[in-house]
Amino acid sequence: MSADDATVAFLAEAGHLKNLPRAGWLLAGIRQPESVAEHSYRVGIIAYVIATLEGANADRAATLGLFHDVPEARTGDVPSVGKQHVTLQDPNDVAAVQTAGLPPGLAARIRGLVAEFEAKETIEAVCAKDADKLECLLQARAYQAAGNTLVQPWIDTMLAAVKTETGRRLAEAAASQPVDAWWHKIVASYGRPGTD
Amino acid sequence: MSADDATVAFLAEAGHLKNLPRAGWLLAGIRQPESVAEHSYRVGIIAYVIATLEGANADRAATLGLFHDVPEARTGDVPSVGKQHVTLQDPNDVAAVQTAGLPPGLAARIRGLVAEFEAKETIEAVCAKDADKLECLLQARAYQAAGNTLVQPWIDTMLAAVKTETGRRLAEAAASQPVDAWWHKIVASYGRPGTD
Amino acid sequence: MSADDATVAFLAEAGHLKNLPRAGWLLAGIRQPESVAEHSYRVGIIAYVIATLEGANADRAATLGLFHDVPEARTGDVPSVGKQHVTLQDPNDVAAVQTAGLPPGLAARIRGLVAEFEAKETIEAVCAKDADKLECLLQARAYQAAGNTLVQPWIDTMLAAVKTETGRRLAEAAASQPVDAWWHKIVASYGRPGTD
Amino acid sequence: MSADDATVAFLAEAGHLKNLPRAGWLLAGIRQPESVAEHSYRVGIIAYVIATLEGANADRAATLGLFHDVPEARTGDVPSVGKQHVTLQDPNDVAAVQTAGLPPGLAARIRGLVAEFEAKETIEAVCAKDADKLECLLQARAYQAAGNTLVQPWIDTMLAAVKTETGRRLAEAAASQPVDAWWHKIVASYGRPGTD
Amino acid sequence: MSADDATVAFLAEAGHLKNLPRAGWLLAGIRQPESVAEHSYRVGIIAYVIATLEGANADRAATLGLFHDVPEARTGDVPSVGKQHVTLQDPNDVAAVQTAGLPPGLAARIRGLVAEFEAKETIEAVCAKDADKLECLLQARAYQAAGNTLVQPWIDTMLAAVKTETGRRLAEAAASQPVDAWWHKIVASYGRPGTD
Amino acid sequence: MSADDATVAFLAEAGHLKNLPRAGWLLAGIRQPESVAEHSYRVGIIAYVIATLEGANADRAATLGLFHDVPEARTGDVPSVGKQHVTLQDPNDVAAVQTAGLPPGLAARIRGLVAEFEAKETIEAVCAKDADKLECLLQARAYQAAGNTLVQPWIDTMLAAVKTETGRRLAEAAASQPVDAWWHKIVASYGRPGTD
Repeated sequence: MSADDATVAFLAEAGHLKNLPRAGWLLAGIRQPESVAEHSYRVGIIAYVIATLEGANADRAATLGLFHDVPEARTGDVPSVGKQHVTLQDPNDVAAVQTAGLPPGLAARIRGLVAEFEAKETIEAVCAKDADKLECLLQARAYQAAGNTLVQPWIDTMLAAVKTETGRRLAEAAASQPVDAWWHKIVASYGRPGTD
Repeated sequence: MSADDATVAFLAEAGHLKNLPRAGWLLAGIRQPESVAEHSYRVGIIAYVIATLEGANADRAATLGLFHDVPEARTGDVPSVGKQHVTLQDPNDVAAVQTAGLPPGLAARIRGLVAEFEAKETIEAVCAKDADKLECLLQARAYQAAGNTLVQPWIDTMLAAVKTETGRRLAEAAASQPVDAWWHKIVASYGRPGTD
Repeated sequence: MSADDATVAFLAEAGHLKNLPRAGWLLAGIRQPESVAEHSYRVGIIAYVIATLEGANADRAATLGLFHDVPEARTGDVPSVGKQHVTLQDPNDVAAVQTAGLPPGLAARIRGLVAEFEAKETIEAVCAKDADKLECLLQARAYQAAGNTLVQPWIDTMLAAVKTETGRRLAEAAASQPVDAWWHKIVASYGRPGTD
Repeated sequence: MSADDATVAFLAEAGHLKNLPRAGWLLAGIRQPESVAEHSYRVGIIAYVIATLEGANADRAATLGLFHDVPEARTGDVPSVGKQHVTLQDPNDVAAVQTAGLPPGLAARIRGLVAEFEAKETIEAVCAKDADKLECLLQARAYQAAGNTLVQPWIDTMLAAVKTETGRRLAEAAASQPVDAWWHKIVASYGRPGTD
Repeated sequence: MSADDATVAFLAEAGHLKNLPRAGWLLAGIRQPESVAEHSYRVGIIAYVIATLEGANADRAATLGLFHDVPEARTGDVPSVGKQHVTLQDPNDVAAVQTAGLPPGLAARIRGLVAEFEAKETIEAVCAKDADKLECLLQARAYQAAGNTLVQPWIDTMLAAVKTETGRRLAEAAASQPVDAWWHKIVASYGRPGTD
Repeated sequence: MSADDATVAFLAEAGHLKNLPRAGWLLAGIRQPESVAEHSYRVGIIAYVIATLEGANADRAATLGLFHDVPEARTGDVPSVGKQHVTLQDPNDVAAVQTAGLPPGLAARIRGLVAEFEAKETIEAVCAKDADKLECLLQARAYQAAGNTLVQPWIDTMLAAVKTETGRRLAEAAASQPVDAWWHKIVASYGRPGTD
């Protein structure tokens, strides 16, 4: 397989996260929940926002958030009820296998993203980890507003897990803000919430 | 609305891309296609890869790709058949409204991401634009393998639209590589493709 | 393209409304909502009922309701949050383009349906417009019963928007009637609500 | 139950067709097919077109098409494999029960729609029946283009079942026209089929 | 058709229950509910459990539960609102047709399963019938927890319908136990309910 | 937790297989594939058929097939691409934990089912294992007929994996029989394949 072919195969593999449902939501009885890719998208967005407000390298934090679940393309998203029954290889080792055929410089860069996220030592990694939690909290709030009654534990746990000052403030706001706050005012200004 | 509340509302708005189907695939008769968020996730991944191989700032390119469709949370994803009937506000103006309540520094940063992507002047923006095309090509290939017979035009157009040398090489590889290449060999090594 | 081919192409285009989710429900966090075609179906039914009770031409009102969203096959269903950012061509102009290749008499008839609905001058058009609102109200009630907590504004707005005396009375009944009223009594008569 | 309440209950019942999958497509292995409501929507559209070209009352034909499956809200859509095992009450009798509580004039009108469609004696009913077949044919073509290999028998049967001269001509065109004909040319004029 | 071909055709027909939504949940406004196959799976599991606790032949009870809805592959799942309008052939007669081409011994065995279940005379059949009710109750509870507000009548009816002492005790427990009881404690032991 | 509560919790846990998509089909790009429960349902059916034809205890084989994936309620369905990265606890140990709170006799029986299936020593276990393969083969054929182009390897592997003489014969028939064979003849006898 040429380097180009290996690179395309890696991009196809990364695309598999579009097909993977987030396992926690399945436990909560949400039959067709968001994908791991959808989660990763907003983790990247949130990491950018937190890092900006924390004075860190926002582009780096966003990128860490974006890539942090790429190893799940191989392992799947193991649910919390499975932790005592399933042993996962270290994500760094999974990433090493996933990037084995890539041009060496590119492989090293991608492994570096996974390693930095997992090590939680740089401020950007801490921001991206917080983004991972805050994203989950926001999604739990959205599922609550859609009717689900089982996701409060996710909100409580995520609230307790964020580490940065910005993350804490945003998580608290997210835990109380109605999920339609962003569009409620816009729509009210038209006198109607619907569509034509 | 406090700055924190406004920031959370922006993150909720960004999450709306999870709910928006990509309009082009609906035209192709794919009833429950990927979301704009899923597309944006892989655009970010691909932008990182292209930028690395082009020697550009990969974190920046990934971030540009990740944010490039955030204005669609307001406008929706207008399909190509609608272009002659729909006039969209400039994405920069949409982003200005979307970020109006954010802490000023953060708002400026996010508007800067949209502006840089739209201007296509930096090498990172060019890489992210190429990633947008290549992502679409890869997804069209995946839908073809899933049976859809209508998406070849997407592949042809995207092949012609990439600009960087890396993008061109990867697009050509993507247009011919079987979509199961990434897992076919792994699975064959177990003597079976299925699951237990 | 022959007249027959153009007619079939128009029917295929009308079928695209089956693929288009109603954008308002996506805002409300309903990930796989009804299609525009499903909405149009019941708008036609309701228009027939209102027009009958108002003493208008019920067949005409039903037909106006049935066709009223056909221009959305081109433009998509622009959500209310997009109104300040998106300018849509006049539906009459969209319909003119959509029917351009049809046999002239047929094209004129279809354009006439769109024009009459948009002008809101005939009693049949007023009934069909009311049906559009009442259909949305009934669907919002159904989503509430399915658990969604965000759709009350749709109900309130639609209640205020109906114009005919019949529409007002039915909207008030719809806003308070449990959505299972139609089957609750039937099922109770069997001593059980389920299925064998 | 007041007349208004009974009318709203009827409209809720008519809405149940949104939830009913077309049973034939389930046989063909299409797991989440169109609903009966989506089918009925386009039957109405097609009936209007055929009746116009046949010189019949197009509004009436559209309305007949729109209402023709309302009895299925009670009976469900019995698949062809079930015909030898399931005996359905006459649709006129089902409609009589469905409309029992409505204002008498309205009930009579709706029963009249079902009766006229079933009797196949008026030219409008014949056009609506043809529309029912042609709609099925067009949908089968769409599922073929989406990859399904089992629906050719639907196309063949529907081709043979249409009765009017217009229906025959359109069915023949529909059986050979690519399903993307309506958007292919529009999109080509932009140099690309995708979305931005 | 050879005996092997007929046997495979029967297995394909049994697989059609994967495509059939349970009609009762559609009435309750659940757009993409469980399939009849999913229901049958757990009816088998529950029948095994009840029969074990009742001292009956658990393997037999499980098998009766597993096969009890196979006739629905032909007839569909007729909803309770349809009972007054639809006459179904006796399930034994449907099963006779379904198994007509099978090797005679196998056909007799499968008909025997349907006959035993329908006759409700053996303790194993009574356990399997109870399992059918309890499964429905458990699923209704799951849909309630997911937000649906219309399914309480299913719970009440199923509670009243179970016959065995074990079935009654389990139904009472099921009617009050939170649906997340099985995973709540496991997850709490990790300090968080989510997924990594 | 009382024994009844523990039993109900086990039944709720078994129901989680309804929510788990089969991981192999996700690899093949099938976005909303069958659930593990749907698979288990037909494994039970097929095990009954094979065991009957092999002269084994058919009720036992069906029950083994029905329960064989219950441990996946904890571990999830690990895809083949994950095997080198994920270590699963022995299914017997998982089942021991899953049944820990049940009445001891019931717990022992359920653990016995898992143990017998995993040991592959009894003829009933061998039949159930073959059923697991044949079910996968039949489903792969169904996805092929629905358009998917990536599942041939599943067919080939399953063909090679069945052990019993009956399993081999049926697998060969299944690999060549059109998936619509079971309904094609029935429907043709009505002169049309569709629905009314």
